Amino acid sequence: MEFTVGQIAEVLSGTVEGDASMRIDRLAKIEEAQAGSLAFLANAKYEPHLYTTSASAIIISKKQALRQPVAAALIRVDDPYLCFSRLLEFYQQTTRTGRRGVEEPAFLGANSTIGEGHFRGAFSYIGEGCTIGRDVLIFPHATIGDRCQIGDGSIIYAGARIYADTVIGARCTVHAGAVIGSDGFGFAPQPDGSYRAIPQIGNVVLEDNVSIGANTTIDCATMGSTIIREGSKIDNLVQIAHNVEIGRHTVVAAQTGISGSTKIGDYCVLAGQAGLAGHLTLANRTTVTAQSGVGKSIKEEGQFLQGSPAFNLRDSLRANAIFRHLPDLARRLDALEGSKSATEKL
Amino acid sequence: MEFTVGQIAEVLSGTVEGDASMRIDRLAKIEEAQAGSLAFLANAKYEPHLYTTSASAIIISKKQALRQPVAAALIRVDDPYLCFSRLLEFYQQTTRTGRRGVEEPAFLGANSTIGEGHFRGAFSYIGEGCTIGRDVLIFPHATIGDRCQIGDGSIIYAGARIYADTVIGARCTVHAGAVIGSDGFGFAPQPDGSYRAIPQIGNVVLEDNVSIGANTTIDCATMGSTIIREGSKIDNLVQIAHNVEIGRHTVVAAQTGISGSTKIGDYCVLAGQAGLAGHLTLANRTTVTAQSGVGKSIKEEGQFLQGSPAFNLRDSLRANAIFRHLPDLARRLDALEGSKSATEKL
Amino acid sequence: MEFTVGQIAEVLSGTVEGDASMRIDRLAKIEEAQAGSLAFLANAKYEPHLYTTSASAIIISKKQALRQPVAAALIRVDDPYLCFSRLLEFYQQTTRTGRRGVEEPAFLGANSTIGEGHFRGAFSYIGEGCTIGRDVLIFPHATIGDRCQIGDGSIIYAGARIYADTVIGARCTVHAGAVIGSDGFGFAPQPDGSYRAIPQIGNVVLEDNVSIGANTTIDCATMGSTIIREGSKIDNLVQIAHNVEIGRHTVVAAQTGISGSTKIGDYCVLAGQAGLAGHLTLANRTTVTAQSGVGKSIKEEGQFLQGSPAFNLRDSLRANAIFRHLPDLARRLDALEGSKSATEKL
Repeated sequence: MEFTVGQIAEVLSGTVEGDASMRIDRLAKIEEAQAGSLAFLANAKYEPHLYTTSASAIIISKKQALRQPVAAALIRVDDPYLCFSRLLEFYQQTTRTGRRGVEEPAFLGANSTIGEGHFRGAFSYIGEGCTIGRDVLIFPHATIGDRCQIGDGSIIYAGARIYADTVIGARCTVHAGAVIGSDGFGFAPQPDGSYRAIPQIGNVVLEDNVSIGANTTIDCATMGSTIIREGSKIDNLVQIAHNVEIGRHTVVAAQTGISGSTKIGDYCVLAGQAGLAGHLTLANRTTVTAQSGVGKSIKEEGQFLQGSPAFNLRDSLRANAIFRHLPDLARRLDALEGSKSATEKL
Repeated sequence: MEFTVGQIAEVLSGTVEGDASMRIDRLAKIEEAQAGSLAFLANAKYEPHLYTTSASAIIISKKQALRQPVAAALIRVDDPYLCFSRLLEFYQQTTRTGRRGVEEPAFLGANSTIGEGHFRGAFSYIGEGCTIGRDVLIFPHATIGDRCQIGDGSIIYAGARIYADTVIGARCTVHAGAVIGSDGFGFAPQPDGSYRAIPQIGNVVLEDNVSIGANTTIDCATMGSTIIREGSKIDNLVQIAHNVEIGRHTVVAAQTGISGSTKIGDYCVLAGQAGLAGHLTLANRTTVTAQSGVGKSIKEEGQFLQGSPAFNLRDSLRANAIFRHLPDLARRLDALEGSKSATEKL
Repeated sequence: MEFTVGQIAEVLSGTVEGDASMRIDRLAKIEEAQAGSLAFLANAKYEPHLYTTSASAIIISKKQALRQPVAAALIRVDDPYLCFSRLLEFYQQTTRTGRRGVEEPAFLGANSTIGEGHFRGAFSYIGEGCTIGRDVLIFPHATIGDRCQIGDGSIIYAGARIYADTVIGARCTVHAGAVIGSDGFGFAPQPDGSYRAIPQIGNVVLEDNVSIGANTTIDCATMGSTIIREGSKIDNLVQIAHNVEIGRHTVVAAQTGISGSTKIGDYCVLAGQAGLAGHLTLANRTTVTAQSGVGKSIKEEGQFLQGSPAFNLRDSLRANAIFRHLPDLARRLDALEGSKSATEKL
């Protein structure tokens, strides 16, 4: 993929200062850009890079004054960040998600329908009785079980596993290796100490605009549905257990685990490697910091939690500040008691 | 799948009160059930739902008295929970695990045998020299390496990866994306600071009735076997390193990691996101709470461990109760010393 | 695979004491060996096993004196450990990584080239415009996206997912289910509280001799490259976010997570379940202990870090030693104040 500076300027309704015939074959950050790259300047903090960058061209505000000569060609626009974002989306679409049609062999089960504009990669599998919308991309090795529904414009990347009866909304993204709908971890202890599997017959529902990261696992409900509501974004290697519900526009970072039947509110943020016990309720706009372990429901909105077990972030920061100095505290206590023995025995 | 209330009652040897011709197309919890659902009442705590549920029919004890009129049809039986469990298993079998035969294309290597009643999904792969029992289900995209053994009635879900020489017992379940038999993480440091891989030539053995969760990883032994004994249940995204042994009827919750050569006893419970160092031994009936990190062997049976590093649960709870109040303790110590400076400098 | 003791001795240029016609069909540790096994003795600590092992043959130093009769045949060599390592590598190669050629059906996209001596398993997928070197093994169900480069002698195990534009060096190993190049977790908050995906158009670069564990996930850079430098070894279920750089000969143990744009130095060790915040820099030879959470950059080389939040290992050990005794400290403080009330109220 190669364009001239002039072609790009035309698409962006921008004006060129410098060599409009310069050839561009990639997009880059202004501080990392090399010859052949197109970068952008939107934040005044990065202006010094303007005079040192190796980029061949830079998208820049019409209002930006220059304090030194610039080697790169400039494309002057009203909103450099917006223009660059559009180029990024165009680039992503042409290189990653632009393919259409069917690569053979691909498997399509009986009584399954799929809308126009789709891509089905080689070795992709769609079971029986599925209803799949328009412009859906199903990459190689993806498995779609029986009776699944997938809305318009969703992307199922390579090797994602969608168990039977899963419902996926429109414009969702499921990354490679994610597993959606595996059996909930439910085992009833028997009198002899062994365990018997409790059948898990529910499903998983992803509403519209949900994103699921690579190798994340989402178990089906025992009965009913495990639900991820509109617009929520789940990172890689996250565990979401049976009957969990995650609200709208909530973000869950990598390697976090949510135990069975817990309900997370809207606009929450769970940072990486956090853990939530089962059967909890977290109010809207709750933030859980990285590696924290939440064992109690949170009723008040907008709380910040830290620690394992987690409590109020401000109190946690203060307690941790003292924690590092525990040996000093113990020594001071010894001194007050007029004896070193107590702490030294620890 | 649709049945009448009368048909279900006949299968369960129950008697109907109400409309036996009502049509049922799903199973649900009494508190969530909608029209068309069959629910059950086994626990007195849920009796109030009996009079408000939208379920079309309810399985109920022959002895249960009614204190108000019930809209749903009732199926009277001796043991409602047992009857409902049988229906759940029947439902699961007909919708998820009832398929038999071979979907093409499927790959079967030379000198491999597979018993009657099996299912091999499209794009499933079985290497050379495998011995696979009766009624084994191998879902699409599963990979079974050379010389593997799989016992009767086991289920290998979509995209599970079974490396060469793995031994899997009868009635095991391996969920989607689980990896069994990958190389142990063994690297010998060289004089120049680089690492050289130590060949990992052992295997993994799962005994009977073992369940492995989605995207869990189990490394093969360096030599000999990594072993998971009869009846143990492993959740999603668990890491089990080379030469680990897990005893009988032990439960390991999601995202827990067990380092190399550690031996876990029988009837243990490892909660979510726990971590175990290498070369440890955990006695039977040890419980490790969520996010705990165990760095020492546990010799006495029946211990509860918490914390990172982990110690006795009761002591850990007490220490954590004080931890939150460390700033108070520090201030009290300042006051006793007649000076605020020490803690304020922290 | 079966050899006589005499055949093995000849390969190793060793001399036999005992029955050279004894048949060997596996390799084992001396303390676990059974009949038919070949073991080795390199460490004096294991000498007692020499007189009790059931191994059929033992590789042993020419200089090793015997203090009791030995039942097994002995193969005398100069360096027993080195000889045994060579046998292990030979065994691994013949049983796991010796296959060559193409199993059908396998998918090879337009304009892709692959060197001599390769293996492509059934249902493996290679996209368009890929350049793949000599002696590369691509196991069943592996997905190689468009325009990928893979160097000589690399192994891509079953079901690994390599997104488009990934660059993999020579002699790399990517284990089953690993995902390389998935979208970075980048979402821009919108005025209405929803999130908009920031296009992720960069790639992942693995330099030579890198090993990636099973079900590990490595996100592509937003722009530019996520990089893992020469010789680094990554264990299972590790999360490496967008724009991370990992130096040379660094080891990352299972279930560790590294947040976006963090740079790890050379010769570092990150133990299991550790977490690193984003935009940090870790100096060369930094060690992070298991379950630790690093929130600050480390500038001085050779530091050991522990805790969540992590600080100096020695200080962390001391603070943890006191932590367990916090209830005692609180009681002593009460006693000094002449009042039990303060702590009892906690």
